[in-house]
Amino acid sequence: MTDILTDAPSALDAARLEFREELLASGMLIGTSVPGIYGRSGDFERVIAGLDSLLGGAFASLGATVLRFPPVYPRADFERTDYIASFPDLSGVVSSFERGDREHRELLAAREDGHAWDGWMDPTDVVLTNAICHPLYATLEGTMPEGGGVFDLSGYGFRHEPSVDPMRLQSFRMREFVYVGTPDAVQLYRDTWLDTSVELLATLGLAVQAVPANDPFFGRAGKMLISAQLRENLKVEIIVPLYGDLHEGTAIASANCQRDHLTAAFDIRTADGEIAHAACVAFGMERTALALLRTHGMSLDAWPAGVRALLGL
Amino acid sequence: MTDILTDAPSALDAARLEFREELLASGMLIGTSVPGIYGRSGDFERVIAGLDSLLGGAFASLGATVLRFPPVYPRADFERTDYIASFPDLSGVVSSFERGDREHRELLAAREDGHAWDGWMDPTDVVLTNAICHPLYATLEGTMPEGGGVFDLSGYGFRHEPSVDPMRLQSFRMREFVYVGTPDAVQLYRDTWLDTSVELLATLGLAVQAVPANDPFFGRAGKMLISAQLRENLKVEIIVPLYGDLHEGTAIASANCQRDHLTAAFDIRTADGEIAHAACVAFGMERTALALLRTHGMSLDAWPAGVRALLGL
Repeated sequence: MTDILTDAPSALDAARLEFREELLASGMLIGTSVPGIYGRSGDFERVIAGLDSLLGGAFASLGATVLRFPPVYPRADFERTDYIASFPDLSGVVSSFERGDREHRELLAAREDGHAWDGWMDPTDVVLTNAICHPLYATLEGTMPEGGGVFDLSGYGFRHEPSVDPMRLQSFRMREFVYVGTPDAVQLYRDTWLDTSVELLATLGLAVQAVPANDPFFGRAGKMLISAQLRENLKVEIIVPLYGDLHEGTAIASANCQRDHLTAAFDIRTADGEIAHAACVAFGMERTALALLRTHGMSLDAWPAGVRALLGL
Repeated sequence: MTDILTDAPSALDAARLEFREELLASGMLIGTSVPGIYGRSGDFERVIAGLDSLLGGAFASLGATVLRFPPVYPRADFERTDYIASFPDLSGVVSSFERGDREHRELLAAREDGHAWDGWMDPTDVVLTNAICHPLYATLEGTMPEGGGVFDLSGYGFRHEPSVDPMRLQSFRMREFVYVGTPDAVQLYRDTWLDTSVELLATLGLAVQAVPANDPFFGRAGKMLISAQLRENLKVEIIVPLYGDLHEGTAIASANCQRDHLTAAFDIRTADGEIAHAACVAFGMERTALALLRTHGMSLDAWPAGVRALLGL
């Protein structure tokens, strides 16, 4: 991990490393050679399953259509978003070997000699799914029914951001409740379910707080997008302080008004023919589980009875 | 899909396409522009959840250690296997953008002009997980306890093999029960739990059959590996006929004696200091669900009562 900490670790990084060590020592997470890539223990998965069930219940009144997408999705759909413009550094495109026997022997010879062999790989038709709602939009191209549509999504997201912070995984599950409809209804949805989410997470003993936030848009051009997003209050994160006074808090969920950002790209319209708007409430499953472990300790048996009951532990 | 069917579809391909159409028309699967990449419906996921629970119960007596790995794992671990030698065409390596503002503007300009922009991407530290047991082995490097270890794994695998056959997904879940121990104990494990698995799947009304099988090793050199695997009876697949007389059957699970193939690569030893052997019993979750849909129909309510009870539907 030393290649990431270029200087002596700050007090915050030290606290993050200490939390990481605690997770590994307790067996909750299983370390690998890559920061942000971990195995999960059976106990960790019990927390995830409890959260999943709790969220399903809390959002049940929406009557959402359940859809599950895999961790890769069509590159053609990725190209219709502006992800490679806004977050190139977080993206993950997939290559494979599509050549013949002779080229394969060349690849193996290069590898045998300790050389890179990526030159023999070619881009495939898929990329890693960055947010689990991205694959949804291509399936909605066209006109939504009267009243719009609400979708219950869950699956693995990928973000290429190696970090010592165990809260910042490269591959993680998210549960998202997405509403696609008219601008007013979408704004109301975002605000209502943000409040519900804050209350729900607070019942788990987490010191949650809703704060205006921005996505990590890339580079100099991204700075303007960040300003606009903050100014228009499009993104609200639900954060939990995990490292005392060292850090204001880490996001475990967010409620985003995407307006027509993705719906226009995929030509999704409301029943009256206008471009639809969309909003989502998204929960980081691992992040929420980790916030619970940080708050209540590594032994699930010692968690407060009320929290255990809510999570079916 | 026409780019895959180079000639007029065979009767088998026609049957596969018809099954695919039935899955899409019923809403069980949601199509995308890429063959083998689908969204899953809520009903489909109810079947998957039922299978997961049934398998957990059937293998409970093993007392397996539960571990869950994400859909990507360290490239350094991938390099310790010979996957790129044996199955280059199925692999998936991940690239991302790791350069600066100027290079990003170049990428976007090329993209704007309709050119490929992969030249600006660089290989990352991760690859797609091809089999969900692959990430396990790096975590076991060293000496196993007396009696070996048994592991309950579940997660997404990736295989780059676009196909019109809905049974052949590019991104799919597998549940694997892996045993690592002495050669004799591993062979006994494979044979015993193969029998259990065949019986279990038969109770779901599937016309299962256990047949010797081989992995799809790449190229001319791979042909010898295929011969050896068959001759030594290392891989047994549990197949179900889905297309009448047109095809002998599609694998929905397999039981594999891997001998020291991966354990030697990761220097995993038994308590007596010898290189351990490993075997796994692996279930294709989507394939099993699809075999059930093909066998019992698209309406879960109309499935036989006994099958519904076993799956908690």
